[in-house]
Amino acid sequence: MNLLYIIDLLGTLVFAISGVLAAVEHKFDIVGAFILGLVTAIGGGTLRDLLIGATPVGWMTDLNYLICIVCSIALCFFMKGFLKKMRKGLFLFDTIGIGIFTILGIQKTLSFGLNPIIAILMGIVSAVFGGVIRDVLSNEIPLIFRKEIYASVCLLGGVFYWLLTYLGCNYELSIVLPILLVVVIRVAAVKNDWQIPFRPLQN
Amino acid sequence: MNLLYIIDLLGTLVFAISGVLAAVEHKFDIVGAFILGLVTAIGGGTLRDLLIGATPVGWMTDLNYLICIVCSIALCFFMKGFLKKMRKGLFLFDTIGIGIFTILGIQKTLSFGLNPIIAILMGIVSAVFGGVIRDVLSNEIPLIFRKEIYASVCLLGGVFYWLLTYLGCNYELSIVLPILLVVVIRVAAVKNDWQIPFRPLQN
Amino acid sequence: MNLLYIIDLLGTLVFAISGVLAAVEHKFDIVGAFILGLVTAIGGGTLRDLLIGATPVGWMTDLNYLICIVCSIALCFFMKGFLKKMRKGLFLFDTIGIGIFTILGIQKTLSFGLNPIIAILMGIVSAVFGGVIRDVLSNEIPLIFRKEIYASVCLLGGVFYWLLTYLGCNYELSIVLPILLVVVIRVAAVKNDWQIPFRPLQN
Repeated sequence: MNLLYIIDLLGTLVFAISGVLAAVEHKFDIVGAFILGLVTAIGGGTLRDLLIGATPVGWMTDLNYLICIVCSIALCFFMKGFLKKMRKGLFLFDTIGIGIFTILGIQKTLSFGLNPIIAILMGIVSAVFGGVIRDVLSNEIPLIFRKEIYASVCLLGGVFYWLLTYLGCNYELSIVLPILLVVVIRVAAVKNDWQIPFRPLQN
Repeated sequence: MNLLYIIDLLGTLVFAISGVLAAVEHKFDIVGAFILGLVTAIGGGTLRDLLIGATPVGWMTDLNYLICIVCSIALCFFMKGFLKKMRKGLFLFDTIGIGIFTILGIQKTLSFGLNPIIAILMGIVSAVFGGVIRDVLSNEIPLIFRKEIYASVCLLGGVFYWLLTYLGCNYELSIVLPILLVVVIRVAAVKNDWQIPFRPLQN
Repeated sequence: MNLLYIIDLLGTLVFAISGVLAAVEHKFDIVGAFILGLVTAIGGGTLRDLLIGATPVGWMTDLNYLICIVCSIALCFFMKGFLKKMRKGLFLFDTIGIGIFTILGIQKTLSFGLNPIIAILMGIVSAVFGGVIRDVLSNEIPLIFRKEIYASVCLLGGVFYWLLTYLGCNYELSIVLPILLVVVIRVAAVKNDWQIPFRPLQN
């Protein structure tokens, strides 16, 4: 399914843009912007590949990922204003992106013969840890630890994908439906400011 | 020696609790709490496995480690008060835990044909780096860099373990004695507030 | 070429010193100083080795690297004043060091059958990421993101090295010339306070 690959690249581009914009905010120089775009876009998949032992890691044998990151630098440089106006569009691609990243992460982990639970965890890692590394390098507490139900949405999408696959669902549907779920829930979550706080009982 | 495995799991549980409690302190949500518990408990062993090339990393092929981390979330949620009262018990398990982690790390590294010095270093990494990653993700300077003779105790225990093995000591004793050493020294260190400062000579 | 190996070790020593001095500044204890020296000196090469799948990572099978790091602790302890006076010499070795690290990183990556673009990127990672990890562990925003054209110099040196190799240049020259380029540009950059800011157009 070639569409999966294209959306994967689009997700990479959008993730890289979020990294580059964070670099602009912190007044990094161009090298910092490139590195922050890079780690945001491919950090999660890289960590997953390292953990499951898939080296050299994925983006090293397919230059299209690097090209997306270079494009994100150019886009941020020449069209920052445009990107600001596109905020909603970027948010949509970002959400589709984490859906795809989660599913691709699950597929790759399963192909290494690992347990579905580990595979879903690795799907979440793929989708989420690029942002975590971006925040650590910017000397900030990772956003996903505090706000947004980012990772929880990946968890739901991942479990749904695995269920559909397990039940023998059609391949295309088993990819499209979880992504739809991810998009619907995340949009609802951001609109209604849903959170899942963790406040232990004070017994 | 099955006891080793059980104490390893108990150590994982206690390490995870320390991560979850740090998450509570920083007001993370439940995802943040889970991730912080996870990296604290298995971060050190994961880094060791990556460095020596043992992929997929250990906890991926044995779900009991993940189960310990989920349990730590539940424990912190329902029994925070109880955990506070158990502070001394937790400290003891934590100390036994770093002893076990050090020895298991040394054993695994040696089994990959690496030098004993590297093995002892990897033992320390196994015991210590989970906490380092926890502190980095919480945007704090790693505790072990400043206080407690945490890593030094692991070093002593590791060298002692290697010596006993080298001298052909009985297998059980060569594990129990270094752990005892770790516990005794760490308890003494915390009671007497021992430190090993590093203040270069101003020549 | 044995000289390459010796300069590599010297570069490791100088990088370790920069890590230990950062530890002194942050009032770390001796364990923190050792770890910070270690990650600064070998963090970049370690990350590269992990990414390209060269495990166990390089310094694990050659204890000379560890010895350099232990020496850096001793040097900082006994001769801090001397090191301060030697600031210019250290800067020179550091610069030669990043040149060597870049080239060795490129060679190793190419030997794993990866693309030259990836190889140059891995060369930069080798030279630069030790310092990034040092800054993250010290809870600071990585220096290379803000100041100095550190990484850019590595990029130039790496491309030049690859070009010379591609054009069939003599082996020794293809190593010496890029390092000279790195030294000349970096010295000029620091003297003239060159920077490459990244200020997107506000369209």
